[in-house]
Amino acid sequence: MPVRLNPPSASELFPVAGVRLGVAEAGIRKASRRDLTLIELCQGSRVAGVFTQNRFCAAPVTVCKEHLPSGAIRALVINTGNANAGTGEVGLTNARATCEAVASLCGITAAQVLPFSTGVILEHLPVDRLTAGLPAAKADLRADGWLDAAHAIMTTDTVAKAASRRITLGGKPVSLTGISKGAGMIKPNMATMLGFVATDAAIAQSLLDPLVKEVADLSFNSITVDGDTSTNDSFIVIATGASGAPEITDAASADFAALRAALIDIAVPLAQAIVRDGEGATKFMSIVVGGGKDRAECRKVAYAVAHSPLVKTAFFASDPNLGRILAAIGYAGVDDLDVSKLRVWLASGNEEVLVAEKGGRAASYVEEAGARVMKAEEITVRIDLARGQADATVWTCDFSYDYVKINADYRS
Amino acid sequence: MPVRLNPPSASELFPVAGVRLGVAEAGIRKASRRDLTLIELCQGSRVAGVFTQNRFCAAPVTVCKEHLPSGAIRALVINTGNANAGTGEVGLTNARATCEAVASLCGITAAQVLPFSTGVILEHLPVDRLTAGLPAAKADLRADGWLDAAHAIMTTDTVAKAASRRITLGGKPVSLTGISKGAGMIKPNMATMLGFVATDAAIAQSLLDPLVKEVADLSFNSITVDGDTSTNDSFIVIATGASGAPEITDAASADFAALRAALIDIAVPLAQAIVRDGEGATKFMSIVVGGGKDRAECRKVAYAVAHSPLVKTAFFASDPNLGRILAAIGYAGVDDLDVSKLRVWLASGNEEVLVAEKGGRAASYVEEAGARVMKAEEITVRIDLARGQADATVWTCDFSYDYVKINADYRS
Repeated sequence: MPVRLNPPSASELFPVAGVRLGVAEAGIRKASRRDLTLIELCQGSRVAGVFTQNRFCAAPVTVCKEHLPSGAIRALVINTGNANAGTGEVGLTNARATCEAVASLCGITAAQVLPFSTGVILEHLPVDRLTAGLPAAKADLRADGWLDAAHAIMTTDTVAKAASRRITLGGKPVSLTGISKGAGMIKPNMATMLGFVATDAAIAQSLLDPLVKEVADLSFNSITVDGDTSTNDSFIVIATGASGAPEITDAASADFAALRAALIDIAVPLAQAIVRDGEGATKFMSIVVGGGKDRAECRKVAYAVAHSPLVKTAFFASDPNLGRILAAIGYAGVDDLDVSKLRVWLASGNEEVLVAEKGGRAASYVEEAGARVMKAEEITVRIDLARGQADATVWTCDFSYDYVKINADYRS
Repeated sequence: MPVRLNPPSASELFPVAGVRLGVAEAGIRKASRRDLTLIELCQGSRVAGVFTQNRFCAAPVTVCKEHLPSGAIRALVINTGNANAGTGEVGLTNARATCEAVASLCGITAAQVLPFSTGVILEHLPVDRLTAGLPAAKADLRADGWLDAAHAIMTTDTVAKAASRRITLGGKPVSLTGISKGAGMIKPNMATMLGFVATDAAIAQSLLDPLVKEVADLSFNSITVDGDTSTNDSFIVIATGASGAPEITDAASADFAALRAALIDIAVPLAQAIVRDGEGATKFMSIVVGGGKDRAECRKVAYAVAHSPLVKTAFFASDPNLGRILAAIGYAGVDDLDVSKLRVWLASGNEEVLVAEKGGRAASYVEEAGARVMKAEEITVRIDLARGQADATVWTCDFSYDYVKINADYRS
């Protein structure tokens, strides 16, 4: 059961001028399920992306990195059922053949196509079946295809993930719509976090590239289920420019700030949806670290808490186990951390409880207050390092019997 | 059920000349259990130690670090039931009071005493009860007290952990005996890995200090259950010199090499015993990484595999899930790793199976062979990075339903 995650409705997802989406059943791994998505972009669209740092990166990730610099991307092709990862040279050949097939169907070049795959790894991509499905996906292309695409890129997700916003830039209405998939990067066999956000805003490539990295850092790179990084993770932002809004060329402009805020406003819930849908998740936890010298050390502390199996099992048990949280902060790797100064709160809803200060349990703390907070489905752990102005937030879920069950039984 | 871990017998544990051990029931947390251990060292004993890197280190760890440089340690005092961690200034006062009480009882100074605590954290140490138990522990002092001490330092361990060896140095018989405790550093409430090894060999302090770090690195610092680092972890080596063997003053001597080998030969099984007794453990896994540029990168890869909840749940399921192992190697942080060159084997007993090469599944691999290896209780994952001569080994256990059960239910 996902934690407070409602499926999107088609009416909530605004079309993005210059983008059409189509899906098809290609039978990549299983028959009778939509497993192929084609996204067509109008000429002049700008695209930027960030990809997995895993050295075993999948063949499509390698091909995306080759094609992106061309600056003239016109199509994205996404298959589920097979990740085309751990497939060596054959995998690269298959990813390139996929691009060739899309190119020939759409009258563009292979270098204008970005391929994405998610599903089982160490198996070769059935390019013939994928290619055979492409005409149906092309025939299905439509501006309101976002919800169907959100469904078609799911693997073990239990809920489709999509978000949409409208803003005004230079007096023109601009839409942003995004979809994501992933049940927490916790399944290298049916792996992969994918996120795609498109807007019809116009923005210079030189601004879009760093913006995508920044947005990813604040969203998809701030979540964890169990610390396992997939071979295929990709986050792509598309700016078609088809809204007619003036091109954003100045990072100090109000329009840039508005677009940046809207992108974050979409990417954060898309990323959080992956954690809410994390395998076996019964709680959604925000680890908010402030008062750090720099963002890097705040992230270290937040991730140490978010990754600790002891903390995660305590949250599953609704146990306000302060010792486990303090121990995780202590081993996070902030070498000169003065534990006598830091403070820790547990919060849910309107209630925030100071639980630790002066190197131990807070004098004002009573276990009943901690227990009350821990019963909630959404809990915030707030940590003040009391040594600077930087902060960082990481979102994660708890660690339940079902996590072990799902991952121990997965291949059987 | 621990994995292939037999309790030691008293007859296997050699007394160490210059060391006497006594235990008592002090009622620190529960009545009628041995929870207090006193170890008395003869004059001239040399002692060295390594301690937790956790910033929330416990008060006794801080006091140990203050007292060790004196070079004249004569007693160790170890209590279970309370870790005296996360206890602020009061905790330091209590740890120092413990040392004063031992000193006054034994006619030494407080600076000659090393204190160790393990048990619940965030609770104040009941110094009065501890102190009241000391005379009984002193009255119990004897050279053959090792097995009782191994029992008395247990918290949630299911099996006492001890090892002993005899070697000859300069024609004299020398004994080494050690005890350890810990069910995997996975319980910050009843936490802590402790290891104590004593020998009646004589060795210069300037050689003992780096030797202890090296031995810890190859043993207690090469294990993991879940990556959580305790607030109290300590590893202590004592060399009494009482065997009459000549003092070792040259790191290039044959005697130094023999003592080093014997220390490693004791510390490794003591450390492995903690993993074998890890909570919920059903498998004992050795992650052996070779062909690295340096030991640090080999350890990174070994720990990435050993910490991955996905790998650990796959081992629990006896599932030869290569994708999870390859993905963990890929995200270990070895930035310029060429995955097309590395090779991975799974091994148990006499069987070793090449499972991955050339960036994917080995051509010769058949699932039946992998499944056969994975059924064993002790499994080795061997990884050749194919880029250098360095190696490193890490020992860990699998991740079972019982791990979640034990840690989710622990405080209830």
